Amino acid sequence: MGIIGCGYWGQNLVRNFFEASSSTVTHICDLDAERLATIGRRYPTTAGVTDYQELLSNPDVDGVCIATAASTHYGIAREALRAGKHVWVEKPLALLASEARELTELASERSRVLMVDHTFVFTSAVQRMKESIDSEELGKLLYYDSVRVNLGLYSHDVNVIWDLGPHDFSMIDYLLPYRPVAVSAVGACQIGAGSRESQAYVTLEFAENLIAHFHVNWLAPVKIRLATVCGTKRMIVFDDTMMDEKVKIYDRGIEVNDSPDDRTRMLVEYRTGDMYAPKLAQTEALSVAARHFADCVAGNATPISGGEAGTRVVAMLEAAQRSLNKGGRREEILYT
Amino acid sequence: MGIIGCGYWGQNLVRNFFEASSSTVTHICDLDAERLATIGRRYPTTAGVTDYQELLSNPDVDGVCIATAASTHYGIAREALRAGKHVWVEKPLALLASEARELTELASERSRVLMVDHTFVFTSAVQRMKESIDSEELGKLLYYDSVRVNLGLYSHDVNVIWDLGPHDFSMIDYLLPYRPVAVSAVGACQIGAGSRESQAYVTLEFAENLIAHFHVNWLAPVKIRLATVCGTKRMIVFDDTMMDEKVKIYDRGIEVNDSPDDRTRMLVEYRTGDMYAPKLAQTEALSVAARHFADCVAGNATPISGGEAGTRVVAMLEAAQRSLNKGGRREEILYT
Amino acid sequence: MGIIGCGYWGQNLVRNFFEASSSTVTHICDLDAERLATIGRRYPTTAGVTDYQELLSNPDVDGVCIATAASTHYGIAREALRAGKHVWVEKPLALLASEARELTELASERSRVLMVDHTFVFTSAVQRMKESIDSEELGKLLYYDSVRVNLGLYSHDVNVIWDLGPHDFSMIDYLLPYRPVAVSAVGACQIGAGSRESQAYVTLEFAENLIAHFHVNWLAPVKIRLATVCGTKRMIVFDDTMMDEKVKIYDRGIEVNDSPDDRTRMLVEYRTGDMYAPKLAQTEALSVAARHFADCVAGNATPISGGEAGTRVVAMLEAAQRSLNKGGRREEILYT
Amino acid sequence: MGIIGCGYWGQNLVRNFFEASSSTVTHICDLDAERLATIGRRYPTTAGVTDYQELLSNPDVDGVCIATAASTHYGIAREALRAGKHVWVEKPLALLASEARELTELASERSRVLMVDHTFVFTSAVQRMKESIDSEELGKLLYYDSVRVNLGLYSHDVNVIWDLGPHDFSMIDYLLPYRPVAVSAVGACQIGAGSRESQAYVTLEFAENLIAHFHVNWLAPVKIRLATVCGTKRMIVFDDTMMDEKVKIYDRGIEVNDSPDDRTRMLVEYRTGDMYAPKLAQTEALSVAARHFADCVAGNATPISGGEAGTRVVAMLEAAQRSLNKGGRREEILYT
Repeated sequence: MGIIGCGYWGQNLVRNFFEASSSTVTHICDLDAERLATIGRRYPTTAGVTDYQELLSNPDVDGVCIATAASTHYGIAREALRAGKHVWVEKPLALLASEARELTELASERSRVLMVDHTFVFTSAVQRMKESIDSEELGKLLYYDSVRVNLGLYSHDVNVIWDLGPHDFSMIDYLLPYRPVAVSAVGACQIGAGSRESQAYVTLEFAENLIAHFHVNWLAPVKIRLATVCGTKRMIVFDDTMMDEKVKIYDRGIEVNDSPDDRTRMLVEYRTGDMYAPKLAQTEALSVAARHFADCVAGNATPISGGEAGTRVVAMLEAAQRSLNKGGRREEILYT
Repeated sequence: MGIIGCGYWGQNLVRNFFEASSSTVTHICDLDAERLATIGRRYPTTAGVTDYQELLSNPDVDGVCIATAASTHYGIAREALRAGKHVWVEKPLALLASEARELTELASERSRVLMVDHTFVFTSAVQRMKESIDSEELGKLLYYDSVRVNLGLYSHDVNVIWDLGPHDFSMIDYLLPYRPVAVSAVGACQIGAGSRESQAYVTLEFAENLIAHFHVNWLAPVKIRLATVCGTKRMIVFDDTMMDEKVKIYDRGIEVNDSPDDRTRMLVEYRTGDMYAPKLAQTEALSVAARHFADCVAGNATPISGGEAGTRVVAMLEAAQRSLNKGGRREEILYT
Repeated sequence: MGIIGCGYWGQNLVRNFFEASSSTVTHICDLDAERLATIGRRYPTTAGVTDYQELLSNPDVDGVCIATAASTHYGIAREALRAGKHVWVEKPLALLASEARELTELASERSRVLMVDHTFVFTSAVQRMKESIDSEELGKLLYYDSVRVNLGLYSHDVNVIWDLGPHDFSMIDYLLPYRPVAVSAVGACQIGAGSRESQAYVTLEFAENLIAHFHVNWLAPVKIRLATVCGTKRMIVFDDTMMDEKVKIYDRGIEVNDSPDDRTRMLVEYRTGDMYAPKLAQTEALSVAARHFADCVAGNATPISGGEAGTRVVAMLEAAQRSLNKGGRREEILYT
Repeated sequence: MGIIGCGYWGQNLVRNFFEASSSTVTHICDLDAERLATIGRRYPTTAGVTDYQELLSNPDVDGVCIATAASTHYGIAREALRAGKHVWVEKPLALLASEARELTELASERSRVLMVDHTFVFTSAVQRMKESIDSEELGKLLYYDSVRVNLGLYSHDVNVIWDLGPHDFSMIDYLLPYRPVAVSAVGACQIGAGSRESQAYVTLEFAENLIAHFHVNWLAPVKIRLATVCGTKRMIVFDDTMMDEKVKIYDRGIEVNDSPDDRTRMLVEYRTGDMYAPKLAQTEALSVAARHFADCVAGNATPISGGEAGTRVVAMLEAAQRSLNKGGRREEILYT
């Protein structure tokens, strides 16, 4: 593998692909030669290059990870696929759904693996939530709500929706049995004139009676990573800031008495019961994803966050951006 | 004092006005005679009546608390003011801003106290937040964010915005130096056809570069009561589920480097510092409010949540309801 | 009922016995006339007296609650039983096990109910723990550990072991299938010369391979109320500071491999599994206890914290005090 | 540097000494060749050897870290010092205070650095606590209390006091202005006959009116790492399980009124005030310690956890073990 872009997250990729028994990292690529030197001291067997073309033209490199600025994902991924490489792209896959679609089709034509790093999908927490939702133990789904805020890295490349939003969009895409049809988003550009949104509230509309909403924010005093999926019978809370017991399943719900004898008021009753925190594997999501990528390259699996999922997430991002530009107006999601 | 409406909250009013040295409860009024009997056993010196007119016509009753269904607030309050009583009304003051305005003017004409029970305004936590905000130690204000969710009482009278929303609208009205100009609200009616919204997301727009947003929800697995006010220099978190340390002030902020030498990217830097949890008085907010009402009646104070504040909050609620009806469209707040 | 001693806890007794449908409070007794007047305003139907003899001689009073200083429990309880009253005594039942034994026998002779207010035994949390332990789902019991500390009421009557220790001694007595045989206790008198211990560590020894230990402390910065009961198969944590989920049952344990092939080292393996927080009733323990007392008086139940349990707890307290006096020496518990 | 013993902690040493700019790791040594191979893949520039003598005889190796079983520390450290190496030893320095003393003197004679890895002493949290204590802002010190429990690694080498106890003994030695004079310890061997203690309660006695106590336990359902240092004026809590706000300083205390007018009862009053969580550096303690060791080797510093501190900690461990053997009897600490 060659890793293109060795910033904060790129270095995590180097470590995980390096330590996975199913792959090795032969090349690291970054524009910053000093950074390459530092990483090289840690991984002396890797070759550091500043031009990613060297990786693409090297027949020993089977696949590349693209962890560069979001605006360059599409271009580099296209070149890499054309050069016959398997491609892992950081989220978002591209800045336009049409570009994401093009990459997906290109990968298919060339029979190469195209995988988007929707990291959360590979966590044992989200896997466990998926199990609960698929088993229908939650009853009728009511809503997805998420808060993803802290004083974090401020992106100079994209706004907070493009930076943190892919986490929730990809979780919603992966977990829920329905696809959102429209989105509205409001945000605030709080730092100087002409700056990017550092805080946003995003609402997703479904054809079904279900609502999804998330809050993403770079400027919050405390770290909150709290996703809730509620159904009429059970409710799941995923608190990613916990060391243990990240997922809690509440046997709580509502019961509606629509008896014809009591037309004046609908009787709503709460049902509360036990709470249950299933044991989760402690594996780092990125190492699971790296192994999954290797499995896909070996032909033993199909990416669970491949081009199709990546394209849907970009379509949601595009619609959210349009809504943001129009002051929060409802915008349909244009799946390609 | 006479208490009209002795449901869950009405009984809290009975207890607090009964125990306050500045007032006594002579009458309790409720349509449910059995309930009156139960409360009467606890407070044998109070007289229980099922018709509130008995309170209004009784010259020994100086003031009344109206803790009936929201739709009846305006009517009963108007009668009470006309009967020369001082009036404490549960939130919301009325269902229409025009009605709230009328009550405010009526109280003024008759020189009676009109106070709305915006309970949170009387908590030591919100009082402490107000101090911080007024001292401008937060720097430039960036946002107000609040989450107010749990599996709580399901109102059969109004939707969740009218039930829980007044808490946030009144805190925003009291705390922030600016007035919101528009609101948008999306909600979900999750329980049967034709039901009321049990969950809603409300965004408030300001002429200043500030945003406010809150999430109110009757159907959440865990209780969250978390309000955040962020500024460029400091950030405050009010967690009302904590026994101690409800208010935390974070010496955290952002610094922007707009240096002309580095035009390509704005340099945003986070500043993190100490956290500080000021000691707060443990007094029950309702007893503070009851004392404040007595002080106002005695002519020693002006209600900090009087008719004007009550009317503004109703104006916000009205605009939020219009937005809800129109699928989340931005609606201007029409202050009367 | 008559309530003798209307301090902080006595007022809780007044409220709970007053509001219970199975009993009513006719008399309240306290040396402080002003305090009686204050309580009388809240409960105008009760008669306030400063001499408890008035209660004992009044044939309308069926039972009395003794919530006076610990040193007076024995004397007043004895008089009350001799006067034919049913008796509820605050913990500890007496200051000497021999006195506790005498009261127990007196109650038996006179066929009166004698109940000690071991409040925790009546909580839904401890009831649920008892169920788990009795079902033997914990496997072999390993230990009971408890931390009961905060900046609380400083008793001027007894040291911290006599003040807070009865909670743990009574829980240990109620929950565990074995009786402790010896105790050692170390403490610190931190406030001025000649003061009482405000902090203590108490260890209980069992004939079985089981250990119990608790830390009681009046001078701790944060409130901790955490009791743990561990077995080889499951572990229970009772956190009384939580609003919800006070009891958590961890499906965690240890497995020992004593295989003869591997004699050099015993293989200990941890087993971690799900966590489960059973739904608990929200009832106030004191109201449960008050109802239980009424049931016992009515002849429908036998006190689960009667004279026998009360006497065992005093025996533990006595032994702990002897150990404290001797610098932590192991002292046998002399059950009478 | 050469690292001797590459188990769980040894690998942390490899990583930290490798990444420190002030040192490099040239050799790793372990009896397990397979483990060496695995680590070698990550650090291809290090040489793996199974015999530590190769390191001691190699003149290119300036210093060694000894992270082997506790029983071997003394022997290997002695050889290493005699071979002229600077020595870093994992805790405990030795199993006998006399051996620890001998190593200390040997290092002094040979002018080599001898440092014990009392990790916590190098955390920013303990550094901050030290600052508070040294500034005397806590008032008169009352107690040190610590709980260090979870379902952790079960040592096959030593009991829980020798495994986890050094953390608290070294913190007590470092933080408090007084030296403990005696210790008592009770424990439980819960896993099979003839097993080591997996749980222990340790009390430290001081000549001053101060008490220290800690609970160490390998068999606890939840992880607790909570150390409290209380004074009459302020109290510090160090919760090492928190991501942020590990250290909280409570402006709480007690005030004693010894007024001659009120001889019957000593008036103790609690004073509660603000809580304050100072910002702490996020640096990993081990990297701080590794740098400190390099500084000491370079002659720019004297170890803050050198042979003297290491010897005192072993003296406390020895006394605790004697007490354990005698059922919790008070044992004097024999400083050498």
